[in-house]
Amino acid sequence: MITIASDFGSPYPAAMKGVLCQRSDARLVDVAHDFPRQDVRAAAFWLREVLPYFPPATHLVVVDPGVGTDRNAIVVRAGEHVLVGPDNGVLLPAARRFAAEADRAVYVVDETDLEPVEPTSTVATPRATLGRADAARGPASNTFHGRDVFAPAAAAVHEAGREGLEALTILSPADEYVDLRLPEAAVDADRATGEVLVVDDFGNAITNVPGEFLEGRERLAANDEVVPVGETFAAVGVGERLATVGSHGYVELDVNQGRGDEAFGLAPGDRVALECPGRSGNGS
Amino acid sequence: MITIASDFGSPYPAAMKGVLCQRSDARLVDVAHDFPRQDVRAAAFWLREVLPYFPPATHLVVVDPGVGTDRNAIVVRAGEHVLVGPDNGVLLPAARRFAAEADRAVYVVDETDLEPVEPTSTVATPRATLGRADAARGPASNTFHGRDVFAPAAAAVHEAGREGLEALTILSPADEYVDLRLPEAAVDADRATGEVLVVDDFGNAITNVPGEFLEGRERLAANDEVVPVGETFAAVGVGERLATVGSHGYVELDVNQGRGDEAFGLAPGDRVALECPGRSGNGS
Amino acid sequence: MITIASDFGSPYPAAMKGVLCQRSDARLVDVAHDFPRQDVRAAAFWLREVLPYFPPATHLVVVDPGVGTDRNAIVVRAGEHVLVGPDNGVLLPAARRFAAEADRAVYVVDETDLEPVEPTSTVATPRATLGRADAARGPASNTFHGRDVFAPAAAAVHEAGREGLEALTILSPADEYVDLRLPEAAVDADRATGEVLVVDDFGNAITNVPGEFLEGRERLAANDEVVPVGETFAAVGVGERLATVGSHGYVELDVNQGRGDEAFGLAPGDRVALECPGRSGNGS
Repeated sequence: MITIASDFGSPYPAAMKGVLCQRSDARLVDVAHDFPRQDVRAAAFWLREVLPYFPPATHLVVVDPGVGTDRNAIVVRAGEHVLVGPDNGVLLPAARRFAAEADRAVYVVDETDLEPVEPTSTVATPRATLGRADAARGPASNTFHGRDVFAPAAAAVHEAGREGLEALTILSPADEYVDLRLPEAAVDADRATGEVLVVDDFGNAITNVPGEFLEGRERLAANDEVVPVGETFAAVGVGERLATVGSHGYVELDVNQGRGDEAFGLAPGDRVALECPGRSGNGS
Repeated sequence: MITIASDFGSPYPAAMKGVLCQRSDARLVDVAHDFPRQDVRAAAFWLREVLPYFPPATHLVVVDPGVGTDRNAIVVRAGEHVLVGPDNGVLLPAARRFAAEADRAVYVVDETDLEPVEPTSTVATPRATLGRADAARGPASNTFHGRDVFAPAAAAVHEAGREGLEALTILSPADEYVDLRLPEAAVDADRATGEVLVVDDFGNAITNVPGEFLEGRERLAANDEVVPVGETFAAVGVGERLATVGSHGYVELDVNQGRGDEAFGLAPGDRVALECPGRSGNGS
Repeated sequence: MITIASDFGSPYPAAMKGVLCQRSDARLVDVAHDFPRQDVRAAAFWLREVLPYFPPATHLVVVDPGVGTDRNAIVVRAGEHVLVGPDNGVLLPAARRFAAEADRAVYVVDETDLEPVEPTSTVATPRATLGRADAARGPASNTFHGRDVFAPAAAAVHEAGREGLEALTILSPADEYVDLRLPEAAVDADRATGEVLVVDDFGNAITNVPGEFLEGRERLAANDEVVPVGETFAAVGVGERLATVGSHGYVELDVNQGRGDEAFGLAPGDRVALECPGRSGNGS
């Protein structure tokens, strides 16, 4: 199985699927193609939360604001899973969730060694490159490495299998690679300071404060606004605010059947201070 | 085959697909994940209209404004099809379309008996629940039953097969369940009073007035606005209004290559009175 | 393999998938269902650029502003690929990319000879047609030929196989059909005049000027605005404009990590004049 995730919208993912189907009979499953555009951190969060629910698979990920620069394409083996994508950190939070460091390995893809992507047509197609001073990268386009680099790499990796990665000539061990760690919250007994990692499609503001912080609490102040703690959205009336533990295990600031981000005035990256009102320094 | 429908947007459906793939080799087909959010009635309409075009399958449906409350997860066998989803009525219009009552059965899912959903990782993941007074529901999160309850139930049901449902220990016959009937129009010889059930992506306002009402008519008054009756959109000029019989068999108020909802000022739930002008009480 | 493309949004594509699954075990791959609504030219462009990356397949395409008129359903065999869709030209640019004329054939679908689409239910469903003066088209709805005509035709064509098309009784050679040629740019040594074919989801304004025009140039004037020519988006700073050769082989007017259409004030169909500043008539 090959899963596919990107910030491409439509219809570019279809070209990647075509290339994958040219080179592999693997089952293809779309994870998402509407990740926030060129937002490596948001994609890294979602992949970390969603990919571990899949059975062992090859995961193709293309969120790649540096397309066309000299950033590498990399492959990360992590436990029973293999991830393929740009070397900008997007794969690492998922890889750490899949397996401890001793069971992970990172490889660089030699793009010049990839079999070039060709249309399955019998007529000439326009050439998608300008001449380059540095010809070391082969015939890939400069703007669509999802189709020309990452999809063929994912197909090759998938066909080789997890055990066959070491023998793949297109891969060499990475001396270094871009790591990315999602920010962690500072948590005391009665106060936690973190930030909004992402806002989901429902408008739930998902923070990086571990859900355990809410254990045993009935209410708290989120950036000085006091709201109930609920086990479920339905713990409050429709349209009312609450703090709860979301399905990822983190504190979320939500509205029952409404948008928490709007009600709390929060966007990804915004700082969030959670306190037990009346106990530790909430002066409001 | 397992079809999947929800109002989850993205990327939550991918976690459900992962769980399904962990537990079944069934082919997965997305029906839609952009049903109007938490709108049980709209989802019930679309499922009734779309699911019967599939071959016999297991249909996983998660439109669930009551997630985390004590509403049950249910399974409905209807003819050769099996539906899995929340007990809020969303499955019933499709079930009635699939088969007459004698060929339907409704079961409640014992959530504590479901094999808990686990990530396929070798490292610890955050816990997605607060302690609960009522521990009878097992380790599911409180906010994402699509992943933790409905997907595993759908996989179990699919693997058991339609004939194996009775023997499944996670199921017991439902003593009662929430029914949902989409409203029916009142139709006389020359007047029909109904409502807009849904507006589709093209802006067509789909009513609950059976298409037979238009038989033999050349024009009618829809909420006092007189428009032609056309067999096809193209019966009127581009941008012009008409009434037609849509692909679901109901009267639609449309605009050729435009949005009927905006042109007629109609939204889901709005009342619609259709009359033959000059015959029955159209005073305008 | 059957690929599926439309401008249907959601959930109508699911009904087409259901019909295909009723009649074929083929693998289904979505290309896109959010093509610009009823925009035959934009769809024709995207299909020409994306479909050739798929292995030989049946390609079902429904962008059909003339649904319900007497336009035909057609089948185009082009090299190893087969396309199915409305006779409005949308299939032709892809067909010409797949194969030269000697290796193409166009057929008309006899709609009355298609096996009617039926729901897999055991209860009656509303009838989706008005009586027609011209009964020659069979029981298809007037507004959803994707479900009632094109999907069954695609399934029949796929099951027959490329070699079996001649023997299919539902097909007859097309005496004539609507051709569509995307406009071509006029290119001189230092000046190219063309237009914006489409704007992609990233906001890149994709013109019909072949990428070779940029070869050896460092900057140009696009509608009198001078911008650098870059091999990659990253050739300029974030938020800055450039001209580059996109992954389709045409000149694109882009912004690094931003929207080129907005920065250049361009929409599909707009005229674009590209000149080498100071050399050929750029008076600004």
